[in-house]
Amino acid sequence: MAEGTWKSLCLSVFDYKTEKYVIAQNKKVGVLFRCIQLAVLGYIIGWVFITKKGYQDTEDSIQSSVMTKLKGVTLTNTSANGPRLWDAVDYVFPPQGDRVFFVITNLIQTPDQKLGHCPESSKVPDARCRTDDDCNPQEAVVAGNGIKTGHCINETGTCEIYAWCPIEKPSPPINPILGKAENFTVYIKNSVRFSKFSFSRSNVKDTGVYLKNCTYDEINHPYCPVFRLGDIVSRAGHDFQEMAIKGGVIGILIEWNCDLDKSYSKCIPKYSFTRLDDNSNNTSGYNFRFAKYYKNISGEEYRTLTKVFGIRFDVMVNGKAGKFNIIPTVINIGSGLALLGAGVFFCDLVLLYMMKKSTVYRARKFESVKKVKKNETGKGDGKQIIETQKLTDVPAET
Amino acid sequence: MAEGTWKSLCLSVFDYKTEKYVIAQNKKVGVLFRCIQLAVLGYIIGWVFITKKGYQDTEDSIQSSVMTKLKGVTLTNTSANGPRLWDAVDYVFPPQGDRVFFVITNLIQTPDQKLGHCPESSKVPDARCRTDDDCNPQEAVVAGNGIKTGHCINETGTCEIYAWCPIEKPSPPINPILGKAENFTVYIKNSVRFSKFSFSRSNVKDTGVYLKNCTYDEINHPYCPVFRLGDIVSRAGHDFQEMAIKGGVIGILIEWNCDLDKSYSKCIPKYSFTRLDDNSNNTSGYNFRFAKYYKNISGEEYRTLTKVFGIRFDVMVNGKAGKFNIIPTVINIGSGLALLGAGVFFCDLVLLYMMKKSTVYRARKFESVKKVKKNETGKGDGKQIIETQKLTDVPAET
Amino acid sequence: MAEGTWKSLCLSVFDYKTEKYVIAQNKKVGVLFRCIQLAVLGYIIGWVFITKKGYQDTEDSIQSSVMTKLKGVTLTNTSANGPRLWDAVDYVFPPQGDRVFFVITNLIQTPDQKLGHCPESSKVPDARCRTDDDCNPQEAVVAGNGIKTGHCINETGTCEIYAWCPIEKPSPPINPILGKAENFTVYIKNSVRFSKFSFSRSNVKDTGVYLKNCTYDEINHPYCPVFRLGDIVSRAGHDFQEMAIKGGVIGILIEWNCDLDKSYSKCIPKYSFTRLDDNSNNTSGYNFRFAKYYKNISGEEYRTLTKVFGIRFDVMVNGKAGKFNIIPTVINIGSGLALLGAGVFFCDLVLLYMMKKSTVYRARKFESVKKVKKNETGKGDGKQIIETQKLTDVPAET
Repeated sequence: MAEGTWKSLCLSVFDYKTEKYVIAQNKKVGVLFRCIQLAVLGYIIGWVFITKKGYQDTEDSIQSSVMTKLKGVTLTNTSANGPRLWDAVDYVFPPQGDRVFFVITNLIQTPDQKLGHCPESSKVPDARCRTDDDCNPQEAVVAGNGIKTGHCINETGTCEIYAWCPIEKPSPPINPILGKAENFTVYIKNSVRFSKFSFSRSNVKDTGVYLKNCTYDEINHPYCPVFRLGDIVSRAGHDFQEMAIKGGVIGILIEWNCDLDKSYSKCIPKYSFTRLDDNSNNTSGYNFRFAKYYKNISGEEYRTLTKVFGIRFDVMVNGKAGKFNIIPTVINIGSGLALLGAGVFFCDLVLLYMMKKSTVYRARKFESVKKVKKNETGKGDGKQIIETQKLTDVPAET
Repeated sequence: MAEGTWKSLCLSVFDYKTEKYVIAQNKKVGVLFRCIQLAVLGYIIGWVFITKKGYQDTEDSIQSSVMTKLKGVTLTNTSANGPRLWDAVDYVFPPQGDRVFFVITNLIQTPDQKLGHCPESSKVPDARCRTDDDCNPQEAVVAGNGIKTGHCINETGTCEIYAWCPIEKPSPPINPILGKAENFTVYIKNSVRFSKFSFSRSNVKDTGVYLKNCTYDEINHPYCPVFRLGDIVSRAGHDFQEMAIKGGVIGILIEWNCDLDKSYSKCIPKYSFTRLDDNSNNTSGYNFRFAKYYKNISGEEYRTLTKVFGIRFDVMVNGKAGKFNIIPTVINIGSGLALLGAGVFFCDLVLLYMMKKSTVYRARKFESVKKVKKNETGKGDGKQIIETQKLTDVPAET
Repeated sequence: MAEGTWKSLCLSVFDYKTEKYVIAQNKKVGVLFRCIQLAVLGYIIGWVFITKKGYQDTEDSIQSSVMTKLKGVTLTNTSANGPRLWDAVDYVFPPQGDRVFFVITNLIQTPDQKLGHCPESSKVPDARCRTDDDCNPQEAVVAGNGIKTGHCINETGTCEIYAWCPIEKPSPPINPILGKAENFTVYIKNSVRFSKFSFSRSNVKDTGVYLKNCTYDEINHPYCPVFRLGDIVSRAGHDFQEMAIKGGVIGILIEWNCDLDKSYSKCIPKYSFTRLDDNSNNTSGYNFRFAKYYKNISGEEYRTLTKVFGIRFDVMVNGKAGKFNIIPTVINIGSGLALLGAGVFFCDLVLLYMMKKSTVYRARKFESVKKVKKNETGKGDGKQIIETQKLTDVPAET
């Protein structure tokens, strides 16, 4: 028997075997099936190929390098500090032209702080006191600025602390001191690289004088990534002056979508702007403190504490490149067509169990093999094959 | 013939054609197949839909903005520098409340360094010398602190160098000077945005007094992202005091997993903590040097070099949002069912080549088409069709 | 009828039903189909399993922590500033050993800037003037350094401005002042973690003396991530000295590709280097300005402005880990086989509509169900089934 098995196997290995179909003259299911076929076809062509470019080998892991440089100066004139000029070196954090940079728009300065004793701010709950007993010595003030000395100062009703004195005055910002930052411009240079296709590209074409004067314009100046801060904020749907008071975070999205089957010159980045910090409630705002440290002649250290409010800009680069490749093409077609299997499955269910004449269809669709008695298996097999062949040959023979 | 082809095509285009099946009364394979069907069904429902939410259109590219702010002060009292107060401005790097921030827990200070001549540290192999000949002038000390002057200093047995003098004393840290940093608190504000669904959310609800006093608690204070540094480290499975000596890196993971089909209020971030720097061997630790620069009256520059050990906290935001969408639903069902094809393939193999009565099954499953002689092809065809019909119509006719 | 339906359903639920096939003795299509089968098989084995390791459950979201530390000193001797020693603290930005770090290779220093009045640089277009009328007071110079005072200075032909004076001299860099930075070494410590498999690993094995002397070597020192800056740049295909003049950006890629089915010791990172900033045109270069602030005895602030050119190194860590898992294995096999459906679909088209004897094949492949008259449906059904059975049983019976 095994022999027969192998023989027939070898013989038939190059015969194409195709499923035998029963034609159910049932237009309902027929139409249904055609629709499913169309849907699948539409999905493959419309979605997989046109929308998702399924015929391409894509790379998402983009290697990107961002360099930012701000330009612009402004003059502030506060009662506390008098006139002061601010240039990029003064108002940008960090200085090294990073992907993420912060621009000061408002500040509270506390110059000449020295280590010493002074009353804690009355805004700090933990520092309030009536008697010295309320101020445990050597204990740090919770969410405060120093270490309690053990004295309670009546004037302020707060504990005396050892800290950088004087303490910063808690003065909520009203209007932005560096409001003119609206007119500063930022130059964002972005180079990307798709290693899989060893394809590099930059958002700048030529430098020098051109970049000194241009500002970005999708149509006329696509290769001039120089933006006015005010424009960025407004394109993100917010008002600069308002945002400048308490600060915030703006995302600058650079989208590279390069179809390497088309001309490379069409691979131009899209810029979009969005506010990243949620300002639905009054939690919004961005601020931090930094200090400049000095030493006087006696070598004693003192510092200028500055609480700065401002806008943090976060340049985010996304991108993918695609190029025709046969493997994904075949696989996408194949797995698309494979979906038809599901359609057949479904239609069969409908036909065999939901139609009036289901039984008829079932009867014709399913054909049973009669059980053969053990003893005559071997022989029976042989016979059967011949018989079957005969039977199936009949029509052609007549 | 082409004509015939087209005719029959048009006629039958809306007839549903269903595969003809042979019922093999073979319970073994039958059960096997049913199992496979169940497995596939289980996979589709259990895995694709319930676990992976295959019915949703998801977005993984989360736009996130993180703002951190530390609170807390501590007093240090070293023999070298005397009492010194440390507030957030002093012990956090960088100051601008970034996603990644470093907190000083230990330090070695070398004040008042000036450019001049002094012996190199004896810890530097390349600087050891017996005679001046061992110290080539103008040569930089490998992994050292300065440029060799050409003299060998006998006291130290090292070359004299031109450097920032005095050289930092190599004193391995024993116990953390800023060990109290354990009680500092960090406020982590995180806003996320899923542009595809234009859905924004923040991990803070209301600000002001509430945030001043609360600390994070999954159940009671899910909207109070204020963490004690000590808790963070211990939740990462380490001991703060021990880690504070040589420093390390802690990852703070914020996981957003938003099912937009459910109520938005259920979209609350999960916080988890892990130690990122491998401390399996003695390589662990995190330290760096920085300097503050001063000028004396004569305009000569000098600096205070500080080698700081500490913990770097890296806030990592992951997240995805999902919303019901018909396309992925259909595709997932379809490709799930398509898996049945594999099951059929497998069961057929079993049935046709591994069962005792394989030959019988093969005989009934495969039905051959007799070759027709060329000359009578056309006629033959016509006949055949009729004949076949007759034959197959018999049962219904009787 | 419904009853009959259910009865037959229950009876046959564990009968295996296999498609009935028609053997088309057509070698052409047969061979075609076998080829398709082979292709699919090759795809599954070769691509899905061997290349893509489809039998593994993989994790791409790698948790990584990078620490960098530079070593090396150099001596500069400029006419302006005289001899000056540069150590890591002086030439690295930012100091805290970040993933991204900048090394100064060239600089323009402007010491002792004070707020005051001086002529704007003649390089700024907006500042050129003939008479005072060309300089509107209080107006900031576009892309300039200060605020116009209203005077036009004839010597320079530019407006007088209120700014940090003196203005930086625009002197294009010719040769790198810190060219010796080529010999600096950077130690890059990288620890990675795959949370799904809770598997951690570091690119360093033992620390201390070993790391002080070794330099990276793929074969001999795979666990010594100490690189010479010059080597990094040259391995990125560029010349350090040339790059040092205007600066640039170098990407350091660390690739972790861990097959957790194999020995963990085989999970060693690969390092590769590439230039990230596009230098195809003359836009390349990397520079920024920073200032050190001082105060003189009278408390007046002055600063040293430094425009630094240099190389930014960006350490990028990629990686994935894979471990055998049954679910992806089964799914990949299944969906691979499902592709065969597409092959069948295609071959059938060829057989039925492109072969000479298509009609013959169609005739045998499709078998129609005769419409049954309504009134005798019920009876007809029962009969039919029996009849069919009879008919199909004939061969075995004889």
